[in-house]
Amino acid sequence: MHIYLDNAATTRLSDAALTAMLPYFREAYGNPSSLYSFGQRANEALNAARASIAGHLNCDPTEITFTSGGSEADNQAIRSAAALGARKNKRHIVSTTIEHHAVLHTLKRLEKEGYEVTLVPVPENGIVRAEDVAAAIRPDTCLVTVMYANNEIGTIQPVAGIGAICREKGVLFHTDAVQAAGHLPIDVRAENIDMLSLSAHKFHGPKGVGALYARKGILLTSLIEGGAQERGRRAGTENVPGVVGMAAALDEACAHMEENQARITALRDRLIDGLSRIPHGVLNGDRENRLPGNVSFCFEGIEGESMLLLLDDKGVSASSGSACTSGSLDPSHVLLAIGRPHEIAHGSLRLTLSEETTPEEIDAAVAAVAQVVDYLRGMSPVWRDLVSGVTPFVIQ
Amino acid sequence: MHIYLDNAATTRLSDAALTAMLPYFREAYGNPSSLYSFGQRANEALNAARASIAGHLNCDPTEITFTSGGSEADNQAIRSAAALGARKNKRHIVSTTIEHHAVLHTLKRLEKEGYEVTLVPVPENGIVRAEDVAAAIRPDTCLVTVMYANNEIGTIQPVAGIGAICREKGVLFHTDAVQAAGHLPIDVRAENIDMLSLSAHKFHGPKGVGALYARKGILLTSLIEGGAQERGRRAGTENVPGVVGMAAALDEACAHMEENQARITALRDRLIDGLSRIPHGVLNGDRENRLPGNVSFCFEGIEGESMLLLLDDKGVSASSGSACTSGSLDPSHVLLAIGRPHEIAHGSLRLTLSEETTPEEIDAAVAAVAQVVDYLRGMSPVWRDLVSGVTPFVIQ
Repeated sequence: MHIYLDNAATTRLSDAALTAMLPYFREAYGNPSSLYSFGQRANEALNAARASIAGHLNCDPTEITFTSGGSEADNQAIRSAAALGARKNKRHIVSTTIEHHAVLHTLKRLEKEGYEVTLVPVPENGIVRAEDVAAAIRPDTCLVTVMYANNEIGTIQPVAGIGAICREKGVLFHTDAVQAAGHLPIDVRAENIDMLSLSAHKFHGPKGVGALYARKGILLTSLIEGGAQERGRRAGTENVPGVVGMAAALDEACAHMEENQARITALRDRLIDGLSRIPHGVLNGDRENRLPGNVSFCFEGIEGESMLLLLDDKGVSASSGSACTSGSLDPSHVLLAIGRPHEIAHGSLRLTLSEETTPEEIDAAVAAVAQVVDYLRGMSPVWRDLVSGVTPFVIQ
Repeated sequence: MHIYLDNAATTRLSDAALTAMLPYFREAYGNPSSLYSFGQRANEALNAARASIAGHLNCDPTEITFTSGGSEADNQAIRSAAALGARKNKRHIVSTTIEHHAVLHTLKRLEKEGYEVTLVPVPENGIVRAEDVAAAIRPDTCLVTVMYANNEIGTIQPVAGIGAICREKGVLFHTDAVQAAGHLPIDVRAENIDMLSLSAHKFHGPKGVGALYARKGILLTSLIEGGAQERGRRAGTENVPGVVGMAAALDEACAHMEENQARITALRDRLIDGLSRIPHGVLNGDRENRLPGNVSFCFEGIEGESMLLLLDDKGVSASSGSACTSGSLDPSHVLLAIGRPHEIAHGSLRLTLSEETTPEEIDAAVAAVAQVVDYLRGMSPVWRDLVSGVTPFVIQ
């Protein structure tokens, strides 16, 4: 049996997305920049996908730029805002301590280029306070970038509140919505979002394609120079099948969002309840205000990597945090940011659900995690010292 | 009938490539950065693709970085070399007047950042002289970037000669091989190539994926910051199906390269002979030393866009130059670079063949072009003045 519980890392391409893509591989495979009708057919598919995605975000199709994924969209949004800021001598950026590395590493690079970055801390529940973001904004702030929902602990950020503050203060607001798009309703107009990044493979679309929404009037800096594709905002022949698949996947996700949310949230809560029965564990992130499919725990006395390998032996695909940082020996910056001590953060487990997850899988996963935690703690002399009272527990 | 003669713009995905890709959409769809076996299966596919592509270029798999396409690879190669140059206070780059815009526009941006660029001119045959490149190299030159074969006029550049010069002078050498990979044999070691860009959809692979070869020891600058994918050289979840499809397409192209070359070259020459019978036309680029599948003509007294639309009515998909610049009113910079006057460059037609092209299609295309040229000239008062001897012909 294979229980896939790493849907925050990537998802299975939906049947609808694949079906939508197939004609553009070997039939309507023309270059959308061509003048002839065969290429125009591909161009029409791009336009239709753009309109459909724009509809789901409540923006104009001209405000959508297709990219190779969420990381590229994040990089382009931040670099564009930084370039616009520099023109007005505004070189300060506000973000949070729990952003994805596509945001944090881009900010690090900007720091080397003379920008100043304020990372607003988050409380233990993993939800940044809008008023803390407001307090961090300065007269020379050119951008606020706060993710829509966190990729490790699933917490949903007060995007609309931050958007309102930024609009009032005249500061650009970008949100990395890679984990939210297709899972939560998004309305860039109502939420005063100026720029938003999304990635198709997080909502059952294909890997290698994403989109950047940028409000009309915001001049995007090209990360990739060359041809005039995407109105000069992103060079390179458009990934037509990828874009078409992304739009089909988002259509499907948005059409079933309410029912999926209800169903997945119920399974998520069942999983949280099950894992809560394992002693000396703690849920990471707010209990309620989190993505429908996200469960994140820390188990004391456990080394995350060993847990994942043993779970894998039992057929459970899980992660300790972000897939993008796996292989790293450092504990998650997100878990440290919400106050987990190093040794606890090392024992983290992220289980992320999808529409395809079943109650049976949830119950089997709970049993597997309980067994693995038990087994690993049994092997650990440190843990034996802990439970025998030599050292006080860190959790509870 | 549809006669597709724009294979330099993009190609049909091969059956082999699609078949190789399919399992990675809905079955082995794991994130290759994950620790569990399901993700590792995707990672193994990436590794196998990397090894296979490296084999075809005669380099080490660790020297291959996957990108979202040729433009991204060009941008990354040039920006990386520029950054390395700056460390040694070398800010001069040598290139040619006939490069793709992914190269030329990146160089334009570097000029704004304080770099100096020398664009070596090419003679009328469209082949840069290696000795002219050598003469342009200065003590502060950090990069020579010359394409392997031109995308508009198909001319094959003296890459090995330029590579030898650069190696001797200790200057990095990059080549945009987007039009060459899968069509011409490439050996980066023998040809002294330090960096090379390729794009899958130019050799019957999928759109939205490419690769950058960079010789061991050359530090690549990330265009996209974030996760540690591609050994920190390119962030973002890997496009596993795309990469697998690219490798399968390149495998197939390389396995049949000799027979394809012979067959396509024969058809190309048949097409050139046919079009040469249309009066007041001229072949662009060297007659022999050109890509097997490239035919480029200028017809006097014709406006390229009208020609393409009328050819489209007759079922022929053709282009006037690069797909990336279609829609632009400026004549091709490549045609101007080989000395075509503006009014002649406007009447350009590019027909590019593939393995799927048949002799019947070639003959039908020749007839269609002859009819269209005749028709358009018949409608043009300027042309009537020209043929009546009021103005001397520019061609012949």
